[in-house]
Amino acid sequence: MTDPIRIMGICGSYDLDSANGHMIDLVLAECKEMGAEVIVWDNKANPLPFVGEDGCWDHDNVKLYKSMADSADAFVLSSPEYHGTMSGVMKNSLDWLSFDQTTGKVFGLISTLGGQSNTTTLNHMRTVVRWIHGWVIPEQLVVSNVKNAFSDDGKILDSNLSKRLVEFSTSLFNNTQKLR
Amino acid sequence: MTDPIRIMGICGSYDLDSANGHMIDLVLAECKEMGAEVIVWDNKANPLPFVGEDGCWDHDNVKLYKSMADSADAFVLSSPEYHGTMSGVMKNSLDWLSFDQTTGKVFGLISTLGGQSNTTTLNHMRTVVRWIHGWVIPEQLVVSNVKNAFSDDGKILDSNLSKRLVEFSTSLFNNTQKLR
Amino acid sequence: MTDPIRIMGICGSYDLDSANGHMIDLVLAECKEMGAEVIVWDNKANPLPFVGEDGCWDHDNVKLYKSMADSADAFVLSSPEYHGTMSGVMKNSLDWLSFDQTTGKVFGLISTLGGQSNTTTLNHMRTVVRWIHGWVIPEQLVVSNVKNAFSDDGKILDSNLSKRLVEFSTSLFNNTQKLR
Amino acid sequence: MTDPIRIMGICGSYDLDSANGHMIDLVLAECKEMGAEVIVWDNKANPLPFVGEDGCWDHDNVKLYKSMADSADAFVLSSPEYHGTMSGVMKNSLDWLSFDQTTGKVFGLISTLGGQSNTTTLNHMRTVVRWIHGWVIPEQLVVSNVKNAFSDDGKILDSNLSKRLVEFSTSLFNNTQKLR
Repeated sequence: MTDPIRIMGICGSYDLDSANGHMIDLVLAECKEMGAEVIVWDNKANPLPFVGEDGCWDHDNVKLYKSMADSADAFVLSSPEYHGTMSGVMKNSLDWLSFDQTTGKVFGLISTLGGQSNTTTLNHMRTVVRWIHGWVIPEQLVVSNVKNAFSDDGKILDSNLSKRLVEFSTSLFNNTQKLR
Repeated sequence: MTDPIRIMGICGSYDLDSANGHMIDLVLAECKEMGAEVIVWDNKANPLPFVGEDGCWDHDNVKLYKSMADSADAFVLSSPEYHGTMSGVMKNSLDWLSFDQTTGKVFGLISTLGGQSNTTTLNHMRTVVRWIHGWVIPEQLVVSNVKNAFSDDGKILDSNLSKRLVEFSTSLFNNTQKLR
Repeated sequence: MTDPIRIMGICGSYDLDSANGHMIDLVLAECKEMGAEVIVWDNKANPLPFVGEDGCWDHDNVKLYKSMADSADAFVLSSPEYHGTMSGVMKNSLDWLSFDQTTGKVFGLISTLGGQSNTTTLNHMRTVVRWIHGWVIPEQLVVSNVKNAFSDDGKILDSNLSKRLVEFSTSLFNNTQKLR
Repeated sequence: MTDPIRIMGICGSYDLDSANGHMIDLVLAECKEMGAEVIVWDNKANPLPFVGEDGCWDHDNVKLYKSMADSADAFVLSSPEYHGTMSGVMKNSLDWLSFDQTTGKVFGLISTLGGQSNTTTLNHMRTVVRWIHGWVIPEQLVVSNVKNAFSDDGKILDSNLSKRLVEFSTSLFNNTQKLR
């Protein structure tokens, strides 16, 4: 019998208490039910420095982050779309990953938007993941009009999106096992 | 007689003492000679916070940055390519701009790479600038193998790139006047 | 007094009797009212061969097309989104243009979609136009749910899109004059 | 024992007697040696019509093409870069595929360029394949300065590219088996 797969969430909003953090929670809850171990990087509790900032190369949070990513078999990236692409927080988080943490691992991508649907952020993240030699599952999630996307108790209001979230999570879980 | 145009440099490396900071200097020196006023955001001296960080919305450096951008007619963006797109530093800097600072203004784009040439970073920055309703000049600069791109006294070694830098600067200067 | 500007439409649907052909007509009608000369490539009447097809290099329709493009100061490109990017018809039409026909000229971009809004086709066309050294105006038009976009007599039903079409046409007309 | 996997080549040059056709041959030869069945669409012998052309919807070549694609487990796409993206021939070939032929199947991507290396064509094809719900392997091949890429007897001159072609083919073969 093999080890359970471990899936790590990385959030493009600074605070996990956000729509992007919430989308990661929902996906990881599905994956956990299927048998995965799940972890999330809490950037607010342990802020990553900017690449190039004084002291960044030996920063304790960078070490912690890389060590967590080393231990993961798969990743969920969820970013707001700012100005037609992923946030600076998401890009800086990805800048701290390298081939050692990502080659051959599996990624699922999520984007939230204040207004109408678009996939530019997903397309750009897909390019980045390819660059670090990861796999991206074909399923992807877009949450448009994000301020009205959830009920007061955090449920997704759009039943089609709910269904797609389950398919997304299942694909991430199953294909990580196939590709590991 | 009209006011001289003002061009602002934004650097995707944290420190202006870098290849990207140097490329901005070279372009702005050309533009200054043609009659432009030139300014550069020094992110190391006045670090921008991450969008979403505690205290970010009223941060003095954000106000200073937006005020500088308000005063500019055109921008030069120079970013390293990290993992197939612009750096987190560049994206976070762009996240702090909005339509007020950028609509109808003119942008020139530069990308540096450690290895061989590619234009993905330029393509992604072009998408972002469109999103904030700016114009991007057709000319763009790629500096590949960036560690070997300059002489000890900071001159560009590739004479073709030198020539393109002059054309780039001239286009930025002339077309900002036309489109202002 | 200078010559009127001439604007050429290129359609990504094979037949001008289509939503994309119709969007071109609407834009060109606006531009004509402002004083532009307007022309449209009718690909159904004069089909362009595929690049590489036997006899393509000396094909009469290619000569006619290039000659029409030579005479234009600006272009309107309107393409359906097929599989996340412009149609093969649009790409083959662009393949037949070269720097001679396009350098320094101004382009406006339109995309139609069967389903919900997206800008990937516009982003990809923007990359192509940059490659052939054209300018792309920041304004762009997306027609989602295209089958329900027009009234029986061909009017745009979404008043916001109608308004944007006028702004798009005005920008194309005015900025072609500035950049010519 | 399971059936051997079947891999289909689709060429973005009109004629298979081209650098792109040759790259497909080299990859398929590797895959055949590993045990795959290999097939190639010969667009010159059986030209696909443009989408929208008179008679296209019932065209015999379209039926033949879709039937061949139906039978494939994986695809190799090789396109020249024309004006910063895939050729019209490649895009029109992809336009004729739909979810039925591609969902869950595996794709490997190749781009050839007349000049220096770039990955824009690969990035755009990656977006298209995602749209039709395919998987794209992380490995990809770029052939720059394509006129000088091969010896008189068709061997790849750049030993690094040769090595990458073997890795690419191996990944395509192995991962198609895992993901089938």
